[in-house]
Amino acid sequence: MKTPRYTDLVASLPATVPFVGPETQERAMKRPFAARLGANENIFGPSPKAIAAMVQAAQDIWMYGDPENHDLRHALADFHAVDPENIVVGEGIDGLLGYLTRMLIAPGDVVVTSLGAYPTFNYHVAGFGGVLETVPYQDDHEDLAALIKRAQNTGAKLIYFANPDNPMGSWHSGQDIVAQFDAIPEGCLLILDEAYVELAPEGTAAVYDVEHPRVIRMRTFSKGYGMAGARVGYAMGTKALIKSFDKIRNHFGMNRASQAAALAALHDQDWLAQTRTQVADARKTIAQIASDNGLTALPSATNFVAIDCHQDGAYAKALLAALVERGIFVRMPFVTPQDRSIRLSCGRPEDLAHVAKALPAAIKSLS
Amino acid sequence: MKTPRYTDLVASLPATVPFVGPETQERAMKRPFAARLGANENIFGPSPKAIAAMVQAAQDIWMYGDPENHDLRHALADFHAVDPENIVVGEGIDGLLGYLTRMLIAPGDVVVTSLGAYPTFNYHVAGFGGVLETVPYQDDHEDLAALIKRAQNTGAKLIYFANPDNPMGSWHSGQDIVAQFDAIPEGCLLILDEAYVELAPEGTAAVYDVEHPRVIRMRTFSKGYGMAGARVGYAMGTKALIKSFDKIRNHFGMNRASQAAALAALHDQDWLAQTRTQVADARKTIAQIASDNGLTALPSATNFVAIDCHQDGAYAKALLAALVERGIFVRMPFVTPQDRSIRLSCGRPEDLAHVAKALPAAIKSLS
Repeated sequence: MKTPRYTDLVASLPATVPFVGPETQERAMKRPFAARLGANENIFGPSPKAIAAMVQAAQDIWMYGDPENHDLRHALADFHAVDPENIVVGEGIDGLLGYLTRMLIAPGDVVVTSLGAYPTFNYHVAGFGGVLETVPYQDDHEDLAALIKRAQNTGAKLIYFANPDNPMGSWHSGQDIVAQFDAIPEGCLLILDEAYVELAPEGTAAVYDVEHPRVIRMRTFSKGYGMAGARVGYAMGTKALIKSFDKIRNHFGMNRASQAAALAALHDQDWLAQTRTQVADARKTIAQIASDNGLTALPSATNFVAIDCHQDGAYAKALLAALVERGIFVRMPFVTPQDRSIRLSCGRPEDLAHVAKALPAAIKSLS
Repeated sequence: MKTPRYTDLVASLPATVPFVGPETQERAMKRPFAARLGANENIFGPSPKAIAAMVQAAQDIWMYGDPENHDLRHALADFHAVDPENIVVGEGIDGLLGYLTRMLIAPGDVVVTSLGAYPTFNYHVAGFGGVLETVPYQDDHEDLAALIKRAQNTGAKLIYFANPDNPMGSWHSGQDIVAQFDAIPEGCLLILDEAYVELAPEGTAAVYDVEHPRVIRMRTFSKGYGMAGARVGYAMGTKALIKSFDKIRNHFGMNRASQAAALAALHDQDWLAQTRTQVADARKTIAQIASDNGLTALPSATNFVAIDCHQDGAYAKALLAALVERGIFVRMPFVTPQDRSIRLSCGRPEDLAHVAKALPAAIKSLS
């Protein structure tokens, strides 16, 4: 008998990693990137008040964080006009997606997502033995009607739907989404991932009763609020569903300084408004850089922009490699036809200046 | 059909919480504790260099942490004279115990632990459907020989064994432990939880080949290093076992500032030595306070002390409540006969002065 004895499921899993980090690439290249624009991070960063709260809390880091996330949860409840019992705070949306998948998915259970949507969700589904059904994007948009239809046909327990979408940056109006909630079949839960919604146009966030039994909404402090390294996400859903997270979550898993920082970030909506402006400016700059080089920036409701290279995935991949070689950390969609594009985070003017300089040479190197 | 459809396992789990946090108690009492001595936290705190690293990293918190934990893992490998591939860093030992349990335990699989040992481990085992077999403490010590024997008799996949022990503070020599490794049955993995070992006497840490196929060792920055709120633990084991964590762990789950702080803490062994002295002094003070009140502090190799109240669990529970009422946050073992004691963290002189003042009144209130 071999030791350890893994579960059959875990023994069957590949030892793959959803994303390679930029630090790994830097170590391989033996030099740092000039511009870190690949991971949808928000380089404009969090409110100085959030940083100050984190610095303050660092002095008290000998204490565990509050396992109930009381203060943050209550502030979020006020902010969203729901009850604190409708909110669970967790270790980023990634952590919450892991918990939720564990709660619902046993081996063989069906999960529906878009072909080329968020890979970390797929990683969790595979990790609990779920069977993924994928639906193609429609014109670079996730297609909620098709996702729901597929769920109806397959008896899916979960649908994953991001609005705005990652990696394409496309979006639907919240109204269009909510109008389809009644079509979600009984027994199926829709994950509405609004990780980027704070950066989207007015009207993108869905407006609906948080006690809708077939919807759970995910939000994060990693994107609009600019604190990806702090690992704070939250989910909003029915009280019964939210309470169920307590059965399995890592109760003392939250970083104490992150709890404090998220609370301060939430209370500085002026900073968020300023970030929105900076992100919008960066989107325009990226569009200009793309257009100057014969490429097309796709419309984006996020802090990244997919740039259509007007050729196939092999070309985009080669262009990406040429940019990486020139010190630009950038990523791209995994799946055809979205993989005709590369994806660039909204940087500061100095970051985008690196791109403006590197892109013509990168393109030239491929011809 | 109801929505959501939980897995049968999750539907069967109780919505209990392993520990109630002190903040929850403070909110219920509507006043803060005068002394926070219940959660085995290290009030002497981390190295100032760790805090400085955290403060520095707070400026860059817009970036995700390195998913490979490269720098910390390599420093730990140097420190322990193992290869980086023998180490996985995770969100505290709690997080790592959760991952490990998920990797090995399917519903019905047997896990052996001591009756009254770390409840969060039991929580994870229940959460994956494992069946707990418990072995009694022997004179307030976990009994490794009995644990191994039970594993042999039950075909257990996992044994949990903490050295030093929580909640009793007792310990075995590393040599005595390692001498029993060969008796661990094939197919069974021993979790050697050394969360408190940095505070234990010389010779407590087990010395053995990290490639031992039936042992995984857990360590943390929460206790000796004083950064419980930062959520950094690590496990050391065979390269194959460590690599398997990559199949399921939350790759971007680590807080960036925590990674930096742990690295700095590791490099300040002088601070750890000073903490050891402060903890030893506090243990003496607690013993004196106990003895002044007709109670007996048990020997401890940790930053907490179990105080034998020389009566039954009901009495200890009442004494604990009387202390809580007087502003002292304290906890106690859950299980007879260990529950004849209360458990106090090693505080600063000013924290213990609160205890010295409150304890006589608390005892008197029960007579």
